[in-house]
Amino acid sequence: MNAPGDLQQRLSLSREPFPQSRKVYVPGASPAVRVPMREITLSNGESVTLYDTSGPYTDPAVALDVRRGLPSVRGAWLDERADTVAYDGRPPAAQDDGGRHGDAADARLDELRREAAALQRRPRRAAAGASVTQMHYARRGIVTPEMEYVALRENGRREWMREYLGDAAREARLRGNPRGACIPETITPEFVRDEVARGRAVIPANVNHPELEPMIIGRNFRVKVNANIGNSPVTSSIEEEVEKLVWAIRWGADTVMDLSTGRHIHTTRDWIVRNSPVPVGTVPIYQALEKVGGVAEDLSWPLLRDTLIEQAEQGVDYFTLHAGLRLPFVPLTAGRRTGIVSRGGSILAKWCVAHHQENFLYTHFEEICEIMKAYDVAFSLGDGLRPGSAADANDEAQFAELRTLGELTQVAWRHEVQTMIEGPGHVPMHLVQANMDEQLRHCHEAPFYTLGPLTVDIAPGYDHIASAIGAAMIGWMGTAMLCYVTPKEHLGLPDRDDVRQGIVAYRIAAHAADIAKGHPGARAHDDAMSKARFEFRWRDQFALGLDPQTAEAFHDETLPKDSSKEA
Amino acid sequence: MNAPGDLQQRLSLSREPFPQSRKVYVPGASPAVRVPMREITLSNGESVTLYDTSGPYTDPAVALDVRRGLPSVRGAWLDERADTVAYDGRPPAAQDDGGRHGDAADARLDELRREAAALQRRPRRAAAGASVTQMHYARRGIVTPEMEYVALRENGRREWMREYLGDAAREARLRGNPRGACIPETITPEFVRDEVARGRAVIPANVNHPELEPMIIGRNFRVKVNANIGNSPVTSSIEEEVEKLVWAIRWGADTVMDLSTGRHIHTTRDWIVRNSPVPVGTVPIYQALEKVGGVAEDLSWPLLRDTLIEQAEQGVDYFTLHAGLRLPFVPLTAGRRTGIVSRGGSILAKWCVAHHQENFLYTHFEEICEIMKAYDVAFSLGDGLRPGSAADANDEAQFAELRTLGELTQVAWRHEVQTMIEGPGHVPMHLVQANMDEQLRHCHEAPFYTLGPLTVDIAPGYDHIASAIGAAMIGWMGTAMLCYVTPKEHLGLPDRDDVRQGIVAYRIAAHAADIAKGHPGARAHDDAMSKARFEFRWRDQFALGLDPQTAEAFHDETLPKDSSKEA
Repeated sequence: MNAPGDLQQRLSLSREPFPQSRKVYVPGASPAVRVPMREITLSNGESVTLYDTSGPYTDPAVALDVRRGLPSVRGAWLDERADTVAYDGRPPAAQDDGGRHGDAADARLDELRREAAALQRRPRRAAAGASVTQMHYARRGIVTPEMEYVALRENGRREWMREYLGDAAREARLRGNPRGACIPETITPEFVRDEVARGRAVIPANVNHPELEPMIIGRNFRVKVNANIGNSPVTSSIEEEVEKLVWAIRWGADTVMDLSTGRHIHTTRDWIVRNSPVPVGTVPIYQALEKVGGVAEDLSWPLLRDTLIEQAEQGVDYFTLHAGLRLPFVPLTAGRRTGIVSRGGSILAKWCVAHHQENFLYTHFEEICEIMKAYDVAFSLGDGLRPGSAADANDEAQFAELRTLGELTQVAWRHEVQTMIEGPGHVPMHLVQANMDEQLRHCHEAPFYTLGPLTVDIAPGYDHIASAIGAAMIGWMGTAMLCYVTPKEHLGLPDRDDVRQGIVAYRIAAHAADIAKGHPGARAHDDAMSKARFEFRWRDQFALGLDPQTAEAFHDETLPKDSSKEA
Repeated sequence: MNAPGDLQQRLSLSREPFPQSRKVYVPGASPAVRVPMREITLSNGESVTLYDTSGPYTDPAVALDVRRGLPSVRGAWLDERADTVAYDGRPPAAQDDGGRHGDAADARLDELRREAAALQRRPRRAAAGASVTQMHYARRGIVTPEMEYVALRENGRREWMREYLGDAAREARLRGNPRGACIPETITPEFVRDEVARGRAVIPANVNHPELEPMIIGRNFRVKVNANIGNSPVTSSIEEEVEKLVWAIRWGADTVMDLSTGRHIHTTRDWIVRNSPVPVGTVPIYQALEKVGGVAEDLSWPLLRDTLIEQAEQGVDYFTLHAGLRLPFVPLTAGRRTGIVSRGGSILAKWCVAHHQENFLYTHFEEICEIMKAYDVAFSLGDGLRPGSAADANDEAQFAELRTLGELTQVAWRHEVQTMIEGPGHVPMHLVQANMDEQLRHCHEAPFYTLGPLTVDIAPGYDHIASAIGAAMIGWMGTAMLCYVTPKEHLGLPDRDDVRQGIVAYRIAAHAADIAKGHPGARAHDDAMSKARFEFRWRDQFALGLDPQTAEAFHDETLPKDSSKEA
């Protein structure tokens, strides 16, 4: 357990701007739309501006206090829409922080809750009869500030790219192969609106997460990366979790999932959401399970419903819900090599089999939609039956669930709830395309969000690489967001360096996919690097790299003289 | 510079057998054909047998002395063929170890040469009028022991796989997509012969490398991995090079390239070849350049010719020769972002331009073939104009050279010289297929041997990952061997851990390709791992992993109790 002082010190390291870089804000037409980007000044006077996930942490001009949370980005927009109401919220329960019977006497918990006191906000929800989802606005032709924000963010600054993308013959030779994506040369707010309206993209943005810097997930946008963080009774503290968040977005995580289990789960989430400029996803069944002391059979719809509201009030932006894991699919896993490996999937399968009843997430799906749309929480429909090994890839259990997720997508869209679909997992290269094809066929182009997939099973310790291969390929094929895998996958809990390794591997995969799809301007970053390389501008190469610090350290290891960097 | 004692110690670490593993030898029909494999005994009593590149180093029963070299594997076969003659060989020249004027007074060199004294062998070459290439035998219908050896090696033991590959429905679901490869269910010696005869596979096996454990490179065989090693005036010693070789093959390098430059280059090679159970490749122009003090303009055909003979006599198994880099192609690189990045390519381009003459490797290609076939050195026709950035991928310079390599392949095959073709480099994902297509179209299915390719340029420090993505894809498409890239690419010289990282990344890529192509039995290894995973047999998972030590260390880091491994 680290003292707050330690945390502040580590945070201050994480807050250091990248070399030769400063935060710039590109203003929008709407008031209060200011999109942060990272501007790198090169030694030859040129500059390069990059998409920036790191939030205010890398802006030295912003005073931050993790005990008070980030400044509001969206507050004025939400106020202006005037379609939400503040209310008292669900009363806190002892068991929110884990433990079947709560544990009011837990001194540590009391201390943590006190530390989180300044992070409490009065929750908002849709005014009676209103819907407050971005999809709702989009379908009514309303371009929200969130949509304008993501349009500017996706385009980035284009001026500096002219140097790199101006040769028509070269551009023709390198033209991307979008494989069905339709990415316009310039992303307009209207294009964003249209994509959100038709469900082909989501902007996860809970009305209770005003600290959010909006981003978009869809096949016609930059491929995104999610990093999982989460406490563990064994190794983490809440302070560490916030620091892990800051660390993850520093290296390029576009969203984070808080997969905390065990104690202090509610309070951990207060810390994370209030300090997160990126969307936060959760798997609510994990918390529900803690509330019933880990006994899956004791789960119930009322308990889960209460947990969804609890988390929606805190500001979680998307929920992984394994609503497509239906009772009749469970026997389909009997002949598998590795059964059910999804944690959420196995919890629900256990419940279904014990009660011999249909999954309550499936039977109560319309009620869940009612909750989601009151806060604009997006669905991330989970693949509880994803394969846990190459041997189980693309089997009937997996695809039966996927088809069900497609049906549920239609239901969610009827409620104007934003929806994405989770995908595998472990898939050999030659079976990856079928995953994308089936998802597009059955899920109506709702964004696909895959874990890897891992292309081999024999690489424990290197699964970030085994899966980056599959991730790059499926990203090119149309997957909108890639859930990272760290080197510790299958082995243990990732530490700080594992998180960095995993995110950088996935930034590579996502960027490789963007280039292959022909995302406008994606290659300019590479060209700036190549030019610096050709001209032996070493410091510029470090600054342009995905991980400047590691590149510089590797260079210095074998070529120690500083002068050689300028050679 | 390390003392020999240090080396012995590090070698003894590299010699440790992998956990739960022992070396087994599968006997062939021909005498003296004994193919080494690694047998892993699992805790449930099952066993798994894997392809093993590590040579006698991981067999504790074999007494080894790096100062005397490895025991002979092929000696009796060569004797029996009775088509080579031993001869005095080329007289050693002072400049063989670098330096324009030699450096007889170099005390260190004298010492090293003394250390290498017991490694000297009287060279062999084809008897007058004879050809001794595997292709020569193959075309005459002769199945050599080398061919029988590689057939057994490619098949591996099949008995243990039944457990994993016996479910017909599963096998149908997971059936590979060979994309034009024609891999038989069982590799017979006759199939090997036929593949070698038609030039679709090569068995690099210099008659002066009897220590070699033969292996085959071709699209209808297991995808292979090459690791580059090589001294450097800055950081390495000869002892370190041998140890690097042992280290590289331990992790799965199927061949190594000795890219040494600077001093002691000839003597280094004695150490490496005599201690290498895998084929050794070189870029002879590197040594020739040392002989002329680094002045490319001073290179000449007689000097290069002499160097080829020098290295052929030492036992180098394949030569990278940039014979397709023709004078008229040099101007095609003028508009490139990164010019000519191949070291051999830029040396030869410099020579061509300075003299305004055609590349002497091209003009003397038939004479080179005469040398190659007298020793059975294989061509690795170099891509001197490979792109050094995504921006230069698939340009006319690159493809003009590739077409020339195709012409030269026909010439080499007329001389019955085994030939493979080198490929890029830096290629975005969507342009990878064109590289394979063009190579197949113009080079008549001669094996393709690519460096990566790197799919993005922005990942210094992580280029093993950026390139493993491209390598896996092009391996699936039909590339026969993948040249590894380490995390230090573009930054500095790889150390021991970088070499391991690079090789493991490439073993992942190669294995992913084998599975995707449907290489018979490839997936059984993964299935054994998945079964161990499902049954929580932790030690078996480590033993089955590509890097048991790292997997175990990662596991122990977060879950310290030994008992948990057996949980």
